[in-house]
Amino acid sequence: MIEISDKVVKSIIVERPSDSYKGMFGRVLLIGGSLNFGGAIIMATEAAVNSGAGLTSVATNINNLSSLHSRIPEAMFIDWQESNLVKVIKNSNIIAIGPGLGLDEHAQSLLQLVKRTVKNTQTVILDASALDLLAQDHTLMPTNAETIIMTPHQKEWERVSQIKIPFQEDKDNFSVLKSLFPDNNGILVLKSNHTKIYDCFGNIYQNPLGNPGMATGGMGDTLTGILAGFCGQFSAKIETIASAVYLHSLAGDELYKEHYVVLPTQLSAKIPQLMKKFSLE
Amino acid sequence: MIEISDKVVKSIIVERPSDSYKGMFGRVLLIGGSLNFGGAIIMATEAAVNSGAGLTSVATNINNLSSLHSRIPEAMFIDWQESNLVKVIKNSNIIAIGPGLGLDEHAQSLLQLVKRTVKNTQTVILDASALDLLAQDHTLMPTNAETIIMTPHQKEWERVSQIKIPFQEDKDNFSVLKSLFPDNNGILVLKSNHTKIYDCFGNIYQNPLGNPGMATGGMGDTLTGILAGFCGQFSAKIETIASAVYLHSLAGDELYKEHYVVLPTQLSAKIPQLMKKFSLE
Amino acid sequence: MIEISDKVVKSIIVERPSDSYKGMFGRVLLIGGSLNFGGAIIMATEAAVNSGAGLTSVATNINNLSSLHSRIPEAMFIDWQESNLVKVIKNSNIIAIGPGLGLDEHAQSLLQLVKRTVKNTQTVILDASALDLLAQDHTLMPTNAETIIMTPHQKEWERVSQIKIPFQEDKDNFSVLKSLFPDNNGILVLKSNHTKIYDCFGNIYQNPLGNPGMATGGMGDTLTGILAGFCGQFSAKIETIASAVYLHSLAGDELYKEHYVVLPTQLSAKIPQLMKKFSLE
Amino acid sequence: MIEISDKVVKSIIVERPSDSYKGMFGRVLLIGGSLNFGGAIIMATEAAVNSGAGLTSVATNINNLSSLHSRIPEAMFIDWQESNLVKVIKNSNIIAIGPGLGLDEHAQSLLQLVKRTVKNTQTVILDASALDLLAQDHTLMPTNAETIIMTPHQKEWERVSQIKIPFQEDKDNFSVLKSLFPDNNGILVLKSNHTKIYDCFGNIYQNPLGNPGMATGGMGDTLTGILAGFCGQFSAKIETIASAVYLHSLAGDELYKEHYVVLPTQLSAKIPQLMKKFSLE
Repeated sequence: MIEISDKVVKSIIVERPSDSYKGMFGRVLLIGGSLNFGGAIIMATEAAVNSGAGLTSVATNINNLSSLHSRIPEAMFIDWQESNLVKVIKNSNIIAIGPGLGLDEHAQSLLQLVKRTVKNTQTVILDASALDLLAQDHTLMPTNAETIIMTPHQKEWERVSQIKIPFQEDKDNFSVLKSLFPDNNGILVLKSNHTKIYDCFGNIYQNPLGNPGMATGGMGDTLTGILAGFCGQFSAKIETIASAVYLHSLAGDELYKEHYVVLPTQLSAKIPQLMKKFSLE
Repeated sequence: MIEISDKVVKSIIVERPSDSYKGMFGRVLLIGGSLNFGGAIIMATEAAVNSGAGLTSVATNINNLSSLHSRIPEAMFIDWQESNLVKVIKNSNIIAIGPGLGLDEHAQSLLQLVKRTVKNTQTVILDASALDLLAQDHTLMPTNAETIIMTPHQKEWERVSQIKIPFQEDKDNFSVLKSLFPDNNGILVLKSNHTKIYDCFGNIYQNPLGNPGMATGGMGDTLTGILAGFCGQFSAKIETIASAVYLHSLAGDELYKEHYVVLPTQLSAKIPQLMKKFSLE
Repeated sequence: MIEISDKVVKSIIVERPSDSYKGMFGRVLLIGGSLNFGGAIIMATEAAVNSGAGLTSVATNINNLSSLHSRIPEAMFIDWQESNLVKVIKNSNIIAIGPGLGLDEHAQSLLQLVKRTVKNTQTVILDASALDLLAQDHTLMPTNAETIIMTPHQKEWERVSQIKIPFQEDKDNFSVLKSLFPDNNGILVLKSNHTKIYDCFGNIYQNPLGNPGMATGGMGDTLTGILAGFCGQFSAKIETIASAVYLHSLAGDELYKEHYVVLPTQLSAKIPQLMKKFSLE
Repeated sequence: MIEISDKVVKSIIVERPSDSYKGMFGRVLLIGGSLNFGGAIIMATEAAVNSGAGLTSVATNINNLSSLHSRIPEAMFIDWQESNLVKVIKNSNIIAIGPGLGLDEHAQSLLQLVKRTVKNTQTVILDASALDLLAQDHTLMPTNAETIIMTPHQKEWERVSQIKIPFQEDKDNFSVLKSLFPDNNGILVLKSNHTKIYDCFGNIYQNPLGNPGMATGGMGDTLTGILAGFCGQFSAKIETIASAVYLHSLAGDELYKEHYVVLPTQLSAKIPQLMKKFSLE
């Protein structure tokens, strides 16, 4: 097991080449935000844009359009009922599904659409409701993607893996991971106050940072957005994912010095400055 | 009578344990915000989230959805016409009803729903319009809750208690409080420029802080949000309530040093830093 | 003619008494904001709230509801098609009509409603479109109000008074003012880069401040909001109006030191601090 | 070829005369923002207002109304389906069309409307989708305008000019420019990491500034807004356009010192201060 450190993050967040253009930094698609949980997808979007995603699109309930643009006009919108969503999925490098997605039939059909559509050049991130849908039906796993990242907290992982929280030992987690991903293309981000990241090859990264002020609704949605932003810019490997987890906590720790509770939207706003520091060192 | 002091607040706002998760800090439900008074429930929500509520849901008029998420995506939404509101009430630890609720039939039916649904593990906060509805019909009081907190200003208390403002003496307030709450589970926050907090056992806490710059619309909604956040995290006892009242005024006093008028939304933004200070001392 | 100075402003903006409550600082109603000009009424609202109005209500097109609450939840909303607007007008101390009102039939009917409804305990502020409607039909003037304040720029005054801009001499302005207000209850704020304020008794105050960075859309709407806030708190006399004009320009001048263009919404945000300074001196 | 320098910018951004009024600084109309790309027109609007446009109107999809006013109430709105858009076009000095416009029939009809309506006293800026529509049909070019500014990035220019990116040499660009504008009234802003500006007379300005943190969605929309603001205030000549390009990059460079990624909306907020500095020197 490797403890994530500044060194790992520095190896990932490098200075951009001077002849950069936005297409180089990923076409990120975020899918989520039902009528009841629109804030979740907005928080994920703010995190993705602040983490440097080149182009960010959001497929969500039409009711979330105004608030999305009010907070983050940098993102593009698609009504998640629209039939041309399939085209947007095809054109994206990173598809993150789950924040505020909900569990109804439409949510299920969206996960199915992602599964049917993605190819082995794309990364899929599965979070929140998407994981609960998977727990009900493992065939929904979009295994065709190049890389599939799951980001459950311990209770969600219990539902997906059928391993009760006290028994979520590394070897058991690996075993489920390998059975879910016969092609070894899955990565598990198991969120707790000592978040661990597992790949199918036996590697584990553990996060030494974080604080109890981050125990507030929306913190996970924000991590999903950072992961999407990072995978859009840097290659979707375990070190990139570890860096996203670490930076999320580091931003939270900076805020926690002065704030009893850490608001997810304030955390996102800190990301560009922290990334700058790592890129310069 | 006890004057609220830093010491009381320090005893309530303690450092969070390192293995915290959001479920530990309360599932708060705020109910309010008619077409005309949507801002009230938004201000209450901003206060609850900034005060550290673990998970915050808002039952309001669908017309307030966009502005709610625009300002505070950390909160979840439920259309207050939806039938599954009853489930959300059941799943909440703290239910605050009143800010911008209005007085029409639907408002009344929502208060009735709260009364019918809550159990003796839950805290209910009654503010603004909810108090006026109660003044008209005392049977709406949700006495089944573990703790019921009322937050009238003096005019609202006059309507609930039938005691004219000049005659709102401690012993008369106690007497009404005890008749409203035969099980001694009610707490009265009687707002004035010397806000007093009464429980059914004869205890009184008085607030020494506050300033005339806080005499602006929305200040009460903000207090309700802070109360909800505090009761979600700390136990819903009189010292917790006193601490919320004190912190609300302290934040207002800090702003008043530089501002002639204190905006409720600016007050809310100050809360995380003030809570931090108390937690460290 | 008196040049407005710090001294005048200090005599108006005094410290609030410690036993203040929001009802003491005015019930302000702002009417305006058609589908095309919703931003105007939002800017006026932000100015009124930041200037210390006790309670601020906004009667506007329903399409402006979300953006109004997104920016300034401190204000209450009423759909300007609702029949109970008449009750809100009756319950207000200050009614400001005009920002983004437009010139269509509904706009006209709203001005008529104000005229029909106001009594001699209320102040009416007429701005922007309301002045153009008046230019077409002088009988729309709400002369029953205790005080009527008009805030035209020179072109609007030309249309109301039929005096061409180069001929808008003091004596001619007085003469029109007296003919419009036989009861001497009108005040004219004639906006230019040397704004002058006239009452019916021959008094003139002139504004020495202001800058060309304020030549941007929305600056007048912001002044209207400040006037409404000031008249809500302080008595609606010429010195109060002069102070509002002066403070508006002073806030603009502060911003102009660092900004080539002064945004109205940034100007409003400065008001609470500037008022504080005057109240302390 | 002239490298743009502080000297050019200082010659354009001069102090405003003390007797300024908003009409002197341009009536800017921005057309764009379909259901999917509303953020683009909002970002362009924020840039125009912050760059000092006297009056800014936005013709867009009605779904973008709330978010537009939430972010920038300084702008006026017109539903782009309304028939009186033609009147607004006629009354504007600067018409910028393209950000988030889309490529459907309505988008095409709007570009046609602009072409049919503009006269030789007006400036038209063509960006984003407007350029793609032009690439399909060169007859859509609004050649009647006094000045037409195109702002393609290299790929868009390839589609308009039929010159592949590696062959976009100065002489070939000039040749296409002259064939598109027989009256020599066109200016080409060819965006890359070394943006060049060409007029029909053989002049070229090149931008020495900019950074890879600006490689993010919305950066081009922001430039369009700045161009519109500048052309509204200063004459629409090549030095003005060069100054807008330079200031856009300078603002980005300032942010890039501390931020790994530069958000377009943060860039816009920097403009008033930078313009001030140039006006004082």
